[in-house]
Amino acid sequence: MTLPFAARMQGAKRSFIREILKVTADPEVISFAGGLPNPATFPVQEVAAAATKVLAENGAAALQYSTTEGYPPLREWIAARYKTRKGITVDPDDILITTGSQQALDLAAKVFLDQGDPLVLEKPGYLGAIQAFALFRPGWRPTPLEEDGPDLAALERHLDGAKLFYAVTSFQNPSGLSYSKAKREAVAGLLDRFGTFFLEDDPYGELRFAGEDLPPVYSWRPENSVLLGTFSKIAAPGFRLGWMVAKGEIKERLVIAKQAADLHTGSLDQMVVWRFLVDNDFEAHIARSREAYRVQCEAMQAACAEFLPPEVRVTRPEGGMFLWAEMPAGANSVELLQKAVACKVAFVPGEAFYVDGTGGNTLRLNFSNSNPDRIREGMQRLGECMRQCLDGKRSA
Amino acid sequence: MTLPFAARMQGAKRSFIREILKVTADPEVISFAGGLPNPATFPVQEVAAAATKVLAENGAAALQYSTTEGYPPLREWIAARYKTRKGITVDPDDILITTGSQQALDLAAKVFLDQGDPLVLEKPGYLGAIQAFALFRPGWRPTPLEEDGPDLAALERHLDGAKLFYAVTSFQNPSGLSYSKAKREAVAGLLDRFGTFFLEDDPYGELRFAGEDLPPVYSWRPENSVLLGTFSKIAAPGFRLGWMVAKGEIKERLVIAKQAADLHTGSLDQMVVWRFLVDNDFEAHIARSREAYRVQCEAMQAACAEFLPPEVRVTRPEGGMFLWAEMPAGANSVELLQKAVACKVAFVPGEAFYVDGTGGNTLRLNFSNSNPDRIREGMQRLGECMRQCLDGKRSA
Repeated sequence: MTLPFAARMQGAKRSFIREILKVTADPEVISFAGGLPNPATFPVQEVAAAATKVLAENGAAALQYSTTEGYPPLREWIAARYKTRKGITVDPDDILITTGSQQALDLAAKVFLDQGDPLVLEKPGYLGAIQAFALFRPGWRPTPLEEDGPDLAALERHLDGAKLFYAVTSFQNPSGLSYSKAKREAVAGLLDRFGTFFLEDDPYGELRFAGEDLPPVYSWRPENSVLLGTFSKIAAPGFRLGWMVAKGEIKERLVIAKQAADLHTGSLDQMVVWRFLVDNDFEAHIARSREAYRVQCEAMQAACAEFLPPEVRVTRPEGGMFLWAEMPAGANSVELLQKAVACKVAFVPGEAFYVDGTGGNTLRLNFSNSNPDRIREGMQRLGECMRQCLDGKRSA
Repeated sequence: MTLPFAARMQGAKRSFIREILKVTADPEVISFAGGLPNPATFPVQEVAAAATKVLAENGAAALQYSTTEGYPPLREWIAARYKTRKGITVDPDDILITTGSQQALDLAAKVFLDQGDPLVLEKPGYLGAIQAFALFRPGWRPTPLEEDGPDLAALERHLDGAKLFYAVTSFQNPSGLSYSKAKREAVAGLLDRFGTFFLEDDPYGELRFAGEDLPPVYSWRPENSVLLGTFSKIAAPGFRLGWMVAKGEIKERLVIAKQAADLHTGSLDQMVVWRFLVDNDFEAHIARSREAYRVQCEAMQAACAEFLPPEVRVTRPEGGMFLWAEMPAGANSVELLQKAVACKVAFVPGEAFYVDGTGGNTLRLNFSNSNPDRIREGMQRLGECMRQCLDGKRSA
């Protein structure tokens, strides 16, 4: 019997990153490959206390079906946090709890994308979004990222006739880059001019350890944008808890798509995370995470300066979990990875983040899941492998 | 700005059932509308103990990202359970953990359905599946259910050229009907003859309180079928934990779709449910649930005999959570619901379970979420409303 797969599954691949993660199960491998938060930041005891309390006080509700929109107190917490942290007024009714922000990408794709619809995204772009969108077969319009945000001339060309612009505006995955205040304003202006719908993904916004906090582009045009957030980086990813901020008709459609996708996000998870948030000093918790990431990022930047060949360019993130390295044109990071794995160090080759087949000379380095000593050791190994690759290139 | 919705969202509606559930928040309303398991069966204390243990022993892993396929010990438990309960050999590697079995429907639709693909389903059919599939716009082929399974002549006609057959073979939602052994064999034979892929949904299989246990149709043809299961009815639905059994290439594609949908199902949920299953007497737990549902079902059947007009036909389920009632042709259960809500009793009008606009004279009655006294009281109210509706019909 021929298997009756849908056309959308042609060419759909497993995440290269998740395949690499299998190699890195070897504890001797120093892995900069995954996007794992530092587990030392996980509030394990606080979560245990929250779970005990929720089940004792409200066990039947925590284990029962619940509403598609999500647990009201958690939605209220998120709205209040936008007010205190970003100065944005968000109605709790405009928040839809999702099963991680990955689900938000799937729901947005379902609600907005017809096959062939022009979709503007960053270049490099977030792999999870590329995977979610790819199943709905849009027309990709990858738009180069610069140090302070997208190349505005390219963005202007690409927005003309586009259906949607998807972007990670702070400490982007994979590049670590953030939009400056000026570029946020300029992007909002261009989106308004072309009447393009905006999907803004902000998983790392709370993880700023340097520079000035900036509002999401969403805040310039909430009516024609959807803003995504997640508890994966501010509580823990194992809950699979994210959210979307969306208004009116858009939110209604997202709720319909969410019902069809999984009815609702776990009741117990939502109640436990809410309990954790309100029973503990969240500011102190998130401050500890930021500090841990600052130290790890600085260790990686120092090691880049010390060990990487000088012709390799590296970004300088002000938050988040990733650095981005660019080798000279012609170098190949998949070849580099083969050498690197033999030397017990891993990373993600950058080409996975490009929908146009370019980016072969780039790589993503995660700093959040190794301590500074391991970061230094791993970068020393990686620098040696890079030198061999680039020397081989020159002598070839 | 015109909102740029995808064509698939045209006509997509919120679940009528979930809207009715809002009305039934009034504690005076006796609701037979939802599909909520009896919360008295929830193992609240056992779950609390499991959560405490998991977080104490393995907290960082429980809160971290994990594999798309799911927690290996949980997959092993499911495979072992198929062996002891159904005599089926399932490889744990062929099990994919999903975010409730609703997600399994979404993933199957993504992997198999192109727009217009002929999809055979039961009539009446499971609403959650209709919603999940509808977003992928198949060509519906609703096939009448009889007391012992599908109308085989209709099924034979519909399987010709079909892409997929979706069915709930035991204690179906909404009808409460089950496939007999003979019909299971006949269905497997027809599927083989037409080379049709089979998606078998079995959320209620463990909830048999009368009659003989039967193997899923899957067991006749595992290579060309996917079998769905869930912990919603045997542990608790608030976890959103389900699974798919699928082999080889099919499982690979489902894993890809799952990565794009939500990366993986909650790590903590999976570990806690596994801990609950292995640290407690699961047989005793599920036996208590079966007994509770048997008592509730019998109370509803007795009340049907006592209070419903004799021309109303009612199914006699041997398990699960639902009864199905059919009023004489021409009667309308949406009108009945308006009367019923005024009398503080609720149910789901059957037309939501039909993709062809028929079924207006039918209704779904849930017996798992009310105690026998409330069931009797609610059915008395409902019987009175029905009598008024049917009398009004006759005198009109």
